[in-house]
Order: sequence, then structure tokens, then C-alpha cells
Amino acid sequence: MQIAFLGLGTMGLPMATNLIKAGYPVRAWNRSPSPVSRLVELGAHGAASPAEAAQGADVLITMLADDAATRDTVIDGKVLDTLGKGAIHINMGTVSVALARELATLHAARGVAYVAAPVLGRVNVAEAGQLNILAAGHAQALSTVQPLFDVLGQKTWVFGDKPEQANAVKLGVNFMIGAAIGAMSEGAALAQGYDVDPAAFLDLVTATVFAAPVYKIYGGAIAENRFEPAGFKLALGGKDVRLAMEAGELANVPMTLASTLRDAHTEAIAHGDGQKDWAALALTAQRRAGRG
Amino acid sequence: MQIAFLGLGTMGLPMATNLIKAGYPVRAWNRSPSPVSRLVELGAHGAASPAEAAQGADVLITMLADDAATRDTVIDGKVLDTLGKGAIHINMGTVSVALARELATLHAARGVAYVAAPVLGRVNVAEAGQLNILAAGHAQALSTVQPLFDVLGQKTWVFGDKPEQANAVKLGVNFMIGAAIGAMSEGAALAQGYDVDPAAFLDLVTATVFAAPVYKIYGGAIAENRFEPAGFKLALGGKDVRLAMEAGELANVPMTLASTLRDAHTEAIAHGDGQKDWAALALTAQRRAGRG
Amino acid sequence: MQIAFLGLGTMGLPMATNLIKAGYPVRAWNRSPSPVSRLVELGAHGAASPAEAAQGADVLITMLADDAATRDTVIDGKVLDTLGKGAIHINMGTVSVALARELATLHAARGVAYVAAPVLGRVNVAEAGQLNILAAGHAQALSTVQPLFDVLGQKTWVFGDKPEQANAVKLGVNFMIGAAIGAMSEGAALAQGYDVDPAAFLDLVTATVFAAPVYKIYGGAIAENRFEPAGFKLALGGKDVRLAMEAGELANVPMTLASTLRDAHTEAIAHGDGQKDWAALALTAQRRAGRG
Amino acid sequence: MQIAFLGLGTMGLPMATNLIKAGYPVRAWNRSPSPVSRLVELGAHGAASPAEAAQGADVLITMLADDAATRDTVIDGKVLDTLGKGAIHINMGTVSVALARELATLHAARGVAYVAAPVLGRVNVAEAGQLNILAAGHAQALSTVQPLFDVLGQKTWVFGDKPEQANAVKLGVNFMIGAAIGAMSEGAALAQGYDVDPAAFLDLVTATVFAAPVYKIYGGAIAENRFEPAGFKLALGGKDVRLAMEAGELANVPMTLASTLRDAHTEAIAHGDGQKDWAALALTAQRRAGRG
Repeated sequence: MQIAFLGLGTMGLPMATNLIKAGYPVRAWNRSPSPVSRLVELGAHGAASPAEAAQGADVLITMLADDAATRDTVIDGKVLDTLGKGAIHINMGTVSVALARELATLHAARGVAYVAAPVLGRVNVAEAGQLNILAAGHAQALSTVQPLFDVLGQKTWVFGDKPEQANAVKLGVNFMIGAAIGAMSEGAALAQGYDVDPAAFLDLVTATVFAAPVYKIYGGAIAENRFEPAGFKLALGGKDVRLAMEAGELANVPMTLASTLRDAHTEAIAHGDGQKDWAALALTAQRRAGRG
Repeated sequence: MQIAFLGLGTMGLPMATNLIKAGYPVRAWNRSPSPVSRLVELGAHGAASPAEAAQGADVLITMLADDAATRDTVIDGKVLDTLGKGAIHINMGTVSVALARELATLHAARGVAYVAAPVLGRVNVAEAGQLNILAAGHAQALSTVQPLFDVLGQKTWVFGDKPEQANAVKLGVNFMIGAAIGAMSEGAALAQGYDVDPAAFLDLVTATVFAAPVYKIYGGAIAENRFEPAGFKLALGGKDVRLAMEAGELANVPMTLASTLRDAHTEAIAHGDGQKDWAALALTAQRRAGRG
Repeated sequence: MQIAFLGLGTMGLPMATNLIKAGYPVRAWNRSPSPVSRLVELGAHGAASPAEAAQGADVLITMLADDAATRDTVIDGKVLDTLGKGAIHINMGTVSVALARELATLHAARGVAYVAAPVLGRVNVAEAGQLNILAAGHAQALSTVQPLFDVLGQKTWVFGDKPEQANAVKLGVNFMIGAAIGAMSEGAALAQGYDVDPAAFLDLVTATVFAAPVYKIYGGAIAENRFEPAGFKLALGGKDVRLAMEAGELANVPMTLASTLRDAHTEAIAHGDGQKDWAALALTAQRRAGRG
Repeated sequence: MQIAFLGLGTMGLPMATNLIKAGYPVRAWNRSPSPVSRLVELGAHGAASPAEAAQGADVLITMLADDAATRDTVIDGKVLDTLGKGAIHINMGTVSVALARELATLHAARGVAYVAAPVLGRVNVAEAGQLNILAAGHAQALSTVQPLFDVLGQKTWVFGDKPEQANAVKLGVNFMIGAAIGAMSEGAALAQGYDVDPAAFLDLVTATVFAAPVYKIYGGAIAENRFEPAGFKLALGGKDVRLAMEAGELANVPMTLASTLRDAHTEAIAHGDGQKDWAALALTAQRRAGRG
């Protein structure tokens, strides 16, 4: 099973590495060449363009930054024209439902199966092959690529036969993460308004009711005012909240908390916090209360 | 150390029970007499009125339903006039910051120490004496009653010397629970908008990113459309969200997510869901999307 | 028809003056004595206390600042105990629906008719006896006091036989004014975000689609950054928006725009804009966009 | 001055008609042919395609429904490739700021001047040549086409030399109209919650504080529950609110009222009200309160 892998960023590189280690032949491409070299050392073939990587592939995996990068690479990069009939494209990036729909149509017109499989998990989870994989697409294609998912993740969650379903789920999860950060931010600001150390408030909630990783990670950053370097940039979080809201709109699902959160992200970006960690949303809650 | 205990509801009864079992003399009162009888069997003295219970007490503990019940019992019930100078009143109920301020002033005028100590934990946690106790008040009073807290809880978190600080923290936590339920509700509605079973979405999030009890409890109820009998009523949750918002207002802290959530609670109550479980907030998200 | 008039502020003074000029015997009281002296010069009797003013009155008119002043004066000031059976109390101030309900009950218990009659119009309109009077209460009482309304206003709008109905309407109107100011603020901030002079934007809208006084008055202030002295203070506007929201809650009517506006007012107050003109809400919209 | 006019809908047809009557040679195109025939009777030349209409034109005017129609016609329809250097394109439709930017770049690359000139006013205003024209673009191009604006409108408001500035202003105005409708909807729902006839509430506000056409038109429709046929469709209003929000996002201007309104529009569409008049937003406020 010949694999083409496009997008070797923070997540893509360890994922491709695991496939190579599992014995799959991989032809890899990345916008900047350095991660390609690292994969070549492990036995991958490097490709000079997306289309070259895709040539003759049975399975194409893309793990690109956003809609624009995916569009540039897959549509404008002629990848779709290169894939043969019967090939399978697994898009593991976080993209909009609208793009998922567009890609599903384009692939169907060319006889290429299109599977959406965005993931949950950070770099270390990707390295350990322990991602949670959120998948949707035709059952047969999903079945064919399951061995690859087994290499990359600890569990595959299948949400339906339309790829956009997996994207909607992924955006729903990321919206919920944003809501958790936003709620911690406002809760901490409330505590601060009563001269309670926000760190004491966050210690309490992350040790008791909200003893989940996502609260501990972002709550810890808020408690320590530690927003750089960014683990996950606020601007990217804001983008996902917006994509969730737009996904809601396409399906006529009002998402009032997403709307409220989005305004907070826009305000944060207006104040120069977009490149800080997502936890920096707390600064907006403080600013609104006349602090900071 | 003579203890008066007012309010033997779901939480108050096991708390008072634990104090009796720990050997403290307890004089107890409750609006309805039946839980008093049960405590008397365990060795408590029953009282016919709040003031009778408070007579001669070193420590008064109140665990009443809300602001109105607390006001009726403590102020209108002449309890405050009964307590001797040097007594300590521990208010363990969830009340507004405004009432906490008012009570602090009234107590100070009578030479009675006033401690706020709302708790985190449900009935079974109270029974096990494993509550988390959120405390604020004068250091000496807190120190005096710490042995009681050690009987009732696993840990005492002290947030300052003004009682209202503990109330602000408690309301901040309850607001965050409301935000978690609200975010699950909208996330599940988004999934549903794409023909993904909401239960599948909630299974995913509560097994991965949000593997915390509060998500599992409410997420499970949403997944199963199981809103009756209510574990914690939606109307009470909505009240706490409102109290958090009002606490924010008093301290000039805008709480935009609380405002958004409050509207959803009002809408839920308008549609007859106030007496259902807090998880029934999900019905409002579905209704807004034209379902249900 | 003996009239007692309590509350001679900006609005109350010209209103009482008009009643005297129309030949009604008026006994007047005000917290600070100076406006009483001015009325006495016109022929009123001055009173040293609310109860003294109310003694023997056929009609009591109150025009007090807010709930607290109304409560202090009418309930704590023993006015209600002083009024004889068959007297009519016209409350022309802007108070909460909750207080309106409480007062209606208290009056009924004493055999005093209670009419709510808040007004629309600023000082100059009050001086000219051209107010719009929003009235609710028992039909017979309304009919009895109509001649007074005819002195004070250009038109009486009757909304029902429960006093709270007029308060709900008044709060609804004030909410709409807040919404208009808020919308201008955000529209102007949007224009400014594109380097369009906010004044040019506001000139356009107030000359075309929104050629109504309320837009011109507040829009003009925003365009000129002229927020002091305050025509109507932002903090008071914020209070009315909150009262509208609370009125909504009591009737299970979610008011999402009111909630959103209220957060903006809280934020404005946190930044020291509470004593500026209501138009200063625009500063919050600018601040959120990283300006000012 | 040879004019090409693309888009002869409700607004475009009377506008083109006025230009012909003023003596300008017009070559017209429309997706459906019937309005072209009507213009030909008045002396216009009909064109079978957008490009044919644009051939040799000094000034191209487009008045198309939305971004998609504008993109289809101007970019995909090869109009831009047809226009000669030195030609001027006046886009009088309501499009997004993002499209305005994209078009400005595309036109500049081809040496064609691009002017944005969306309008305020309904059909009868267009027929009377009394539109308000919101213009932005290079000063020289604006000066050249001013005689055309003088035919079409009563006044030209110039907002800057970047076309997107006029679009931002237009979207800001439409957002404000949406806010006015939304505020009336919630105010009327509040009144209704107190058994006050919404029509009585709306009579009051549109006769007093909000005596402006936009309130009277939409308020009248709400008062009479008259939502069909649609004067301006709710779905289109919702689209403009969304475009205003997106314009805000591009410039880092949070628009919290727009976000709140957008959720209401999504909800309205989910309940089948998208094709009704914009005033039908009131139905969502009622539904949220458990009515209707």
C-alpha cells in the first residue's frame, strides 16, 4: 500500500514517522523541505511537489494547517488530478465543513474516495501513536485504511459516511475546549474581582470538579500568566471557534456560546494576543473588568 | 462546643449526621420536622424554631436552600438576635454575594463572627465526609471551626478574610458547571445538525478531552435524554448562573458567557424545563435548531 | 383634590410646578430642601417628611430616582401607613417590575389604589407639559387622575389594569434606547476599523435611515466624543437595561440583546465611564477593538 | 459615456431606467431576459452575456444580488478581462468587505478603476432617483462618475479612497437595521410577557422615541403579524448581519450585538422563517419566550 503524505508539521511529522516505522512505503512532501529530509533518513521517498508525492499512491494522507493550505495543496497543487481512480484520500487536518463538502464533491467526480479523519491529541500523543481518530466516509474506504489508523491512534471513532460529519465533530470538540478556556477566564476574573487570587480559584476547580487535562493545561497557564511560548495559538483557537459557528450556520444550528466566545477572540487579537497561547483569552476577561 | 444546625435538606442531613457521629452536641432545626426526628434518633436535640436551636450555641451552621430561606431563617427568624457575642456562624449554603455582604455587616454589629463555607460535592460525598469546603472569614474564627470542617470535608480551601470571597468562588464554580453543560448542549446540537448521534459525540468528548465527572454525569444524561428525576434542577442551576452574573456586576466584572447561558436558562424555563435536570439545557439548544 | 408630591429632581420639579400652575393644591417633599423652597414660592406647601406630605392627600405622586429611593420613601418613610383608604398613589418613576408588584400588594392591603405612570420625555418636555405618560392600574383610579395626566403630558397611553404593565413597557422602551446606542457604537467602531471617520458614519445614519431624535442626540455625542456633562448617565442607562432583563426573567422572556448590552455597560463602568453620558457606551466598543 | 449595466433586479431596473431617461447610452444584461426587454423598449441595447455588455464600456455598473452573483458575473463571466484600461467599474451591490478587497486587487492589476457605491433606499426611492449613495474609491474616478450618481440619487456620501470603506459603511447600516428589528422584537416580547398587546407597545415606541421610517415599517409588520409577502427577506437581513460581523472580524472589531443577532437569524431560519419579511425576527423572540 503506497502512501503519499502531505504536510509534515508538528503533528504530521510524527504521524508519518510512525507509518514508516510500521513498514509502510511513504512518499512525503512538505512546504519547507527540512522535515522531508528527516523522513528520508528514516526511509521515506521525498517529493518535490504535492503532485509528485501523490503520483501512483494508493492512499493519500494530508495533514495541512488550514483550509487555505489544504486548498492550495490539494486543489491548486493538482493532487486531485494526479490520484488514480480507486485511490483514497484521508484528510486528517482540521478544516471547515464547507471545504469538506467541496472536497467530497470534487473527489467523487474523479472516482477517488474521500475520508475525513481529524484527530484529538497533541504532539506527544501523536508520537506515541495514541491519537483519537475521528473518522467519516464510505465504509469500505474506512475499512481499507483502518490498519493505518491503528498505527496512528489508540482508537478510531466513526461518525458516519459523509466526511463532513467528522469535521463537524472535531469542530464541536474544539469549540468545547474554547468554551472551557473562556469559562475559566471569566470565573478567574470573577474571583479576582473579589480579591481572590485567580491561581487559587483555578487550583480549586482543576483539582475538583474539572480535573481533566484540558482544564489543567490551560488553567495552569492562566494561573501562572504564562502565555508564551504558545502551545496552541489563540488565533488558531479563535479560527476553530469560528469554523464551529459557521458549521452551525450551514446546518441551521445556532451556537450562542460560540458567538460569545468568538467576540472574545476577536477582541484578544485586537489587543495583540493572537500569537500567544490560547489560555491568553483570560487577558480579555481581565481587561474587560478594567484590569491589566 | 455546642453546635446549632439549621437546614437538614439533602446535603444538611448527612453533614449534621457526621458531626453527631464525631461526638459533637448538635441542636437541630428544619422547616419540615421529619429529618429532625432522624437526627434526634442519633442523639441530636431537636428544636422547634431556628432561634431555639441557636440559643446558647458556640457555633451555628446553616445549610439553607437559597437567599430567601437564609434570610427568613437567620434574619426574620431572630437567630442573629439569639446568638451570643463570640459565637460563630458558618453559612455553608450557596447564597448571593449581596446577601453575604449584608450578613457580614449584621453579624459584625452584634459581635458574632461570620464565616462563609459553601461546599463542592453531592450527597454521597457529603455522607462520606469528603466535601471540598470553600471558606472565607476571619482567620481566628476559621481556625476555631477547622475541626468541624475536618469532619465534614476532605479539604478546606481558604480564600480570604471576607466571607463574600468564598461565595464568589462557589458561584464561579457553579457558573463553570453551567458553561460545561451549555457547551456540551451546543456541541451535541451541532453534531446532530450533521446527523451524528449526539450520544456518539458525547461519548467521544467525555472519554477523551473532557474525562471529568461533571461532563460524564451531565453528558450521560444528555446522551440518554434522561432528564427526570432531576439530580440538580435546571432552575437552580439557572439561579446560580444568575447569581454569578450579579456577583460579577457588583465587582464590575462582565461575564459574557454567564449572560449567554442565563438567556438559555430563561428560555428553558419558559418551555417548562425548569424542574428537569440541569442537563435538560440541551433541549433548548435542540429547540433553537428547530428540533424537538 | 389635595396632591402630595414626593421627589423634586430634574423631572419632578417641573412636573409639580405644572400642577401648581394648573391650580392644584400641592404639598411637596424632597430629600434635599432647595427645590421645595422653589415650589413654596409658587404656592405649594412644603413638608418636612414624606409622611407629612402624604397626610390627608387624595393623590400621592412619587417621582423618585430608583427602587431604593422609592422603597426608602414610600415603605420605610411610612407614607403608605399615612395615606387614607380611597387615596390614589401614582408612581411616575422608573422602577423594577418586582417593586411594582410588591407595592401593588402593599397598597391593596391598605385600601389605597396604586397606579404606575412612568413617562417618556426629558426636562424640556416635562416643562412644556408634553410628556408621554405610560399608565397602568385600576380603570377607575386612572379615570380619576386623568385630569392630572392632562396637565403633565400630551398623551396618556394605558397598558392595562396591573401597574407592573406600565413599568414593563417603560423598561422595554429604555432597553430599546440602550440597544440603539449600542448599535450605533458598534456600527461606528466598524466604520472606524476601516478608517472611516465615525462622525461621517453617524452623520449618514442619523440623516437617513435613523432620523429619529434618540439617534441624533446620542449619535451626535458619539460623533463629537462629547460625553460630559452627562444628559443621562451611562450607569443609569445600564441599570434600566438590567431592570428590563430582570423583568424579562420574571416573565420567562429571554432578552438576548439586553444581556449583551448589559455586559457592555458593566465593562464601561469598570473603565470609569459610568458617570459619563449614556453615549459613552461607544468608548467600550472602541476599546474592545483595541482603540482609545 | 458608454454605460454597461449588469443586474436588473428590483433595484437595478429602475436605476438603469433613470440613466437611460437622462440620456446615457446603456448596454444592459440580466440573468433572466425579461427586464432586459423592458429596458430595450426604452432605448437600451440588450446584451446576451455580461462580457458582451461590458465590451467597449466607459463605465460598468453592477447591481447584483450578493457575493456569489457578483463573483459569477464579474470574475467568472470574464467581464473584467473585457473592460479596457481606463474604464471604471461601479459596484452598487451589497457585497462583503472581503470581496471588495479581492475585486480592488483584480481591477488594479488590469488598470480598471474600481468604485464601491452601495445604496440606501427601497424601490420607490430608486425609481425617484432619490437614493443615498455610499461611495468609496479613487477621487478621480468618483469625480468622473458623479454625474451618474446625480441621476440615481439625492446625495452621494464619500467615505474614502478604498472601495471596501463604502461596503463597511453599508454593512454597518444594515446591521443597525437588524439591531432595530431585534430590539423591537425583544421589547415587544417583554410587553407580551406582561399581557400588554405588542401592537400597543410598538404603537408607542414608533410614535414617540423611535419615530423613524425603519421602525415604523418593521414595527408595523410585527404589530400586525404581517410577514408575507416579504419586503426584505429575513434570510437576506441575516446575511448582511453576518457580513457586518465578518467585516468586523477582518478589522479586529468585535461586534457583540451583531453576533447575538446572527444567532437569532440562524434560529429563525431553522424554524422556517427565512423567506418571510425581516420583521419575522419577532417570531423568534416570541418562540424563545414559549409563545407561538
